Amino acid sequence: MKENDLLVEKVYQQARADEFIWQKAKTLGMSRKKFLQFMTVGAGIAIGSGLPRLRLEEPALAAGEVVKSVPPELFYDYKGIQQEMRWEAMYDRGYLVPNELFYVRNHTATPKIDQKTWRLRVEGSGVSRPREFTYDELLSLPSVSVIRALECAGNGRSFFESVQGKKADGAPWKLGAIGVAEWTGVPLREVLQLAGVKRTAKDVMPEGLDEKKVRRPMSLAKALEEDTLLVYAMNGQTLPADHGFPIRAFVPGWLGAASIKWVGRIEVSEKPLFSTWNTESYVLIGSDYQPNPPAKGTIITAQNIKSAFELAWDAKMPAGEHLLRGRSWSASGKIAKVEVSLDGGKTWQAARLREPNLDGAWVRWDVDWNARPGKYQLQAKATDTKGNTQPTSVPFNAKGYLYNAVVSHPVTVS
Amino acid sequence: MKENDLLVEKVYQQARADEFIWQKAKTLGMSRKKFLQFMTVGAGIAIGSGLPRLRLEEPALAAGEVVKSVPPELFYDYKGIQQEMRWEAMYDRGYLVPNELFYVRNHTATPKIDQKTWRLRVEGSGVSRPREFTYDELLSLPSVSVIRALECAGNGRSFFESVQGKKADGAPWKLGAIGVAEWTGVPLREVLQLAGVKRTAKDVMPEGLDEKKVRRPMSLAKALEEDTLLVYAMNGQTLPADHGFPIRAFVPGWLGAASIKWVGRIEVSEKPLFSTWNTESYVLIGSDYQPNPPAKGTIITAQNIKSAFELAWDAKMPAGEHLLRGRSWSASGKIAKVEVSLDGGKTWQAARLREPNLDGAWVRWDVDWNARPGKYQLQAKATDTKGNTQPTSVPFNAKGYLYNAVVSHPVTVS
Repeated sequence: MKENDLLVEKVYQQARADEFIWQKAKTLGMSRKKFLQFMTVGAGIAIGSGLPRLRLEEPALAAGEVVKSVPPELFYDYKGIQQEMRWEAMYDRGYLVPNELFYVRNHTATPKIDQKTWRLRVEGSGVSRPREFTYDELLSLPSVSVIRALECAGNGRSFFESVQGKKADGAPWKLGAIGVAEWTGVPLREVLQLAGVKRTAKDVMPEGLDEKKVRRPMSLAKALEEDTLLVYAMNGQTLPADHGFPIRAFVPGWLGAASIKWVGRIEVSEKPLFSTWNTESYVLIGSDYQPNPPAKGTIITAQNIKSAFELAWDAKMPAGEHLLRGRSWSASGKIAKVEVSLDGGKTWQAARLREPNLDGAWVRWDVDWNARPGKYQLQAKATDTKGNTQPTSVPFNAKGYLYNAVVSHPVTVS
Repeated sequence: MKENDLLVEKVYQQARADEFIWQKAKTLGMSRKKFLQFMTVGAGIAIGSGLPRLRLEEPALAAGEVVKSVPPELFYDYKGIQQEMRWEAMYDRGYLVPNELFYVRNHTATPKIDQKTWRLRVEGSGVSRPREFTYDELLSLPSVSVIRALECAGNGRSFFESVQGKKADGAPWKLGAIGVAEWTGVPLREVLQLAGVKRTAKDVMPEGLDEKKVRRPMSLAKALEEDTLLVYAMNGQTLPADHGFPIRAFVPGWLGAASIKWVGRIEVSEKPLFSTWNTESYVLIGSDYQPNPPAKGTIITAQNIKSAFELAWDAKMPAGEHLLRGRSWSASGKIAKVEVSLDGGKTWQAARLREPNLDGAWVRWDVDWNARPGKYQLQAKATDTKGNTQPTSVPFNAKGYLYNAVVSHPVTVS
């Protein structure tokens, strides 16, 4: 495997998992032969000792655990720490999602951090000059801005239950756990270089200053990409508290959980790094997926391709002419076409794509509709420039990740 | 002249001025021959009767005439209706200027408009179906987003006085009367088409609902461009009151005054349209410029090319390593290169340009500086892809427009 293959989250996670479990097996005195037998029966859970055991159930938090205003007309709230953007609010907005409308997915309450005393520690076996950075030091390093999507791996999770009758763990997102913003910050590689990153370094793991110290590793190759950032501004505004003030990671194309908020420490290691956030959580567990020790299920891949209408869920509208709008996105490239069905999938028409259509962000589209009274199921299906398209169904997984089947959006016209 | 030449503001304004004055001369019984003699002596002021005579001096307004917060650490305030962005505030921001930092140039106090009762009237001899639009009707029309600069024609005006010793009329902007934002709205042509715009239409003039009913015409060709918009969202947020809520025009590349705020009426005419905002104001008056009846001076052209450092004016900084940052922009295309001098123009170095570098917006750049104690004059000089570059001086004009000479930015290092 070449180091560059490790830019792909799936390849990286699989390589690290294989390596981790083999090291553990060796430690336990297991032969390579026995290890391979062992792997085929999927008994990774017996390995035990080296695995982090932190339980990931969400604590019962009161509402108001985020700082920004999340009024019910703009957000669905789940347990006070997960706020889903309402798509209807995007109908008269632009390409970017403004900070006050951007979805929030925290694991605990938003921490309040004073940037005067805040420090970023960069340390571990993979750096020769471990060091700390102040906020002002970070700001004085080279700056990059990118316009890209950030999406929760569980976006669309609720449809496993409503469509397939199987309830998945986690917040019942519809399709609003995504946003496109302008992210400005220091390339992570600048910081790594200043800390004397070694040629032998393997993994890089940013760690949050939230109560749970949320952390998740990435390959050195991904950490050195020009657009993997330590972000301090979002849509030109100082990064808001709920989105990771003073500094968050931004790891384009990888699932949202890789973009750790409130970063206070970055571990750089010559050995593979693991956390519960890529072993217990963010893995695909179900009868259609293989266990993948040390992960409890198939290692999750990067985000996929989805579409959403800019309509209230179960929208009501008067009969007559309407311009229906929506957006489609893919982590694998630009959107090439979007087809829309206004009759529950019987007939399809091409939607008009509206510029801009940026790589790794999204495209807006619209179709005319002369709506007559009745109940409708609107559908949209996107295809990207690599030929990926939305399927008609997605195999169930217990944590409800990566639901990207074509969704039937209910609308009542009267 | 082809209709498409009228996309260029200078060509358009000149053509209309020539036509206007000849029509007036004919009305007065003047022969073509006498008219041409008359024009050469520049006595356009004698034409009289048809010219708008409204005086454009700013009223003495109290502070607080804008709605948004304009704290002195972020803005220079001029008469309560003109707020200049402080460049140092952009140092740790992104490519876009957030709405709360965007400069404000009003002619009177920001009007408070209720979008429920607000209507847009489209009328005049150039349309066959004059009509009104509600706010919701506008939102249901096709939507376009562009990332572009908006700049006051007087940006840089203060340097006529501080550099050349000649004080120009108007707000003493340094270089902060510019911003780049994402503008979202309905293409103006969609609205014109719904109003039955005629093939014989010539000019289009949006008019504001502010106290002065600020208005300024553009050619039909410019009005029909895909990116000439009636804007309802700025950086993904509902257009703020100070920036034209509910609807403003956005006329890319033309001077800021063409992008009329709080639009309530659009006149479409088969005859040339004029207003004091393209006859008395926004014209170049001075010994180096020709009078240009009915305008009092050379018709102003589109914006030009400029640069600014992301530093406080007369910045103080400690000795040591600094990453100096700035931005350059041109209305005629992308920036091709930026040269920086740290010794008052003796030696020059190429600045590093940072992506993105969008057409009609700006580019960010930076240079390393190992600053020793002393007083410095920092300079930056941009060149665009069409070969336009910043001059060393600009001929004075009474209203202080289009100052784009290389500026000496004072810095004290201690």
